[in-house]
Amino acid sequence: MERNHGNLIGFRPDIKVVDCTLRDGGLVNNFEFSDEFVKDLYRTNIKAGVDYMEFGYKASKDIFSKEEYGKWKFCDEEDIRAVVGNNDFDLKIAVMADVGRTDFKNDILKKEDSVIDLVRTAAYIHQIPAAVEMIQDAHEKGYETTVNVMAISKVREEDLDHGLELLAESDVDYIYLVDSFGAFYPEQIRRLTDKYMNIATKHNKRIGVHTHNNQQLAFANAIEALSNGASLCDATVSGMGRGAGNCYMESLLAFLRNPKYNLVPVMDFVQKHIIPERAKGNLWGYDIPYLLTGVMNSHPSSAIRFQKDGRFDYSRFYQELLDNME
Amino acid sequence: MERNHGNLIGFRPDIKVVDCTLRDGGLVNNFEFSDEFVKDLYRTNIKAGVDYMEFGYKASKDIFSKEEYGKWKFCDEEDIRAVVGNNDFDLKIAVMADVGRTDFKNDILKKEDSVIDLVRTAAYIHQIPAAVEMIQDAHEKGYETTVNVMAISKVREEDLDHGLELLAESDVDYIYLVDSFGAFYPEQIRRLTDKYMNIATKHNKRIGVHTHNNQQLAFANAIEALSNGASLCDATVSGMGRGAGNCYMESLLAFLRNPKYNLVPVMDFVQKHIIPERAKGNLWGYDIPYLLTGVMNSHPSSAIRFQKDGRFDYSRFYQELLDNME
Repeated sequence: MERNHGNLIGFRPDIKVVDCTLRDGGLVNNFEFSDEFVKDLYRTNIKAGVDYMEFGYKASKDIFSKEEYGKWKFCDEEDIRAVVGNNDFDLKIAVMADVGRTDFKNDILKKEDSVIDLVRTAAYIHQIPAAVEMIQDAHEKGYETTVNVMAISKVREEDLDHGLELLAESDVDYIYLVDSFGAFYPEQIRRLTDKYMNIATKHNKRIGVHTHNNQQLAFANAIEALSNGASLCDATVSGMGRGAGNCYMESLLAFLRNPKYNLVPVMDFVQKHIIPERAKGNLWGYDIPYLLTGVMNSHPSSAIRFQKDGRFDYSRFYQELLDNME
Repeated sequence: MERNHGNLIGFRPDIKVVDCTLRDGGLVNNFEFSDEFVKDLYRTNIKAGVDYMEFGYKASKDIFSKEEYGKWKFCDEEDIRAVVGNNDFDLKIAVMADVGRTDFKNDILKKEDSVIDLVRTAAYIHQIPAAVEMIQDAHEKGYETTVNVMAISKVREEDLDHGLELLAESDVDYIYLVDSFGAFYPEQIRRLTDKYMNIATKHNKRIGVHTHNNQQLAFANAIEALSNGASLCDATVSGMGRGAGNCYMESLLAFLRNPKYNLVPVMDFVQKHIIPERAKGNLWGYDIPYLLTGVMNSHPSSAIRFQKDGRFDYSRFYQELLDNME
């Protein structure tokens, strides 16, 4: 496969955009999106030229209850169809399934019975053999597939290399470079993208990128990866996502030179839905506690708790993080 | 001069940090900082290991009235001394003077009569000969000097090259790469830093970097410049500055590996002063209108007005910008 490296003036027709607002944003509000929010986001993505819209998780109902979470934690076929009908548009439909938290054999239908196009698997490094099983299942059912290897900023280099080789030998279409903790600087993303590209291209795979905004580097890291050969990019409207959130769809679409993308419908969606969402008290985005967990390469859960508790004693929080360094 | 390029794991002892909170932040609140804010910021910078603290502008009192602006628009010697005494610390004191808006011959004293260490000149490309006159005046009076060439994202390449040559031949110590409109991507910053370094090092000059956060790239662009040889970096606490604001001091200090820098006092300052400053309604930081002026390479004034008017009709604002493309 050609390694189609980018530059900023031209555009790379191979770059595609995945809207993860419902899935990563659902971690902010327990997937309690109004039907109007979801329908308008679907229409927005069609008009904006976005390539994939991720509706949420395929979570196991044995593990998670429908009382506790909104329906996009589960993405039942009829719930997606209530929004998209038969989805007679270029926009493709994606769902994510976490290794160990999904009943994929039953809950992921055959492609011919589903409006879903892309099944995304998310796995920690030790779960890669289980991820490969899920990938093969989805691939054989007829779906496009991607895999996120999470928390790699805590993974030893040789374990990562080995895991990536296993994935590259599977039938997965895209392997994602994921910065789960917002811990990486662009220079590190550059080297990691090179690593992923080297392993992936040998096996005819492509690379995706999913970033977090702990250090206000989600967009910078995303375009760094794209400039070095990644070709699938996750973003959310206004960066909506757990903790510091994600790469902003607004910034990404303004950056991409491909005329198929259109920023205007996304801005209209922000005006109509994102401002009220924030007004409800649903918090996400860069703040000092997320900077600290990012710099210290920690899970954002402690920072989310800090914010929910209405605390502003950043220095004490920093000491608490130091006390609990993993 | 050695071109001491950086990497992320080691540290570059030549990199120095300039706190511009009062100067660029003063553009948010008309320089109406409380004395406590300024004194605490001074103490914070000393404890944090910051190298320079910019107190504000040396603006002409013939052009600007002391009724309309707080005292840091003018930085009278006695006002600075009321905060710093004789400044018996390593932290150096800086002021900025805009070409054409300063009575520098009278208002900038001889170094032996002043507690100021660094005089920063700001100029548009057509003002470079006037900037050289100011630089020489400050240099001969005994100060360190820097120069900001503003709005270069609208300057033709050969004009920029010629202007940089003129500055490199002056007695200035640092030439600043400035992204006035937050218009540049890191890849462009990399190439520009190379250009500035090539011209500057021939004449034994160093390079500084001053970025804006319109595309949430202020920090990413700052470290990109530092990684390519820039050695003086502007930042403000929580990015306080006009429009989208600046590179966050918090992110920058967390990034620099030099153990002389300490993030804790800056976080304490945020808790004590920045949160109340925002609560007063003083607005700055990334938002869609600033993204748009950044992407369109325009002055942020229209975006500031949009925000002050409490508007959220981003798409209409985008059309207005298109109607007024320069």
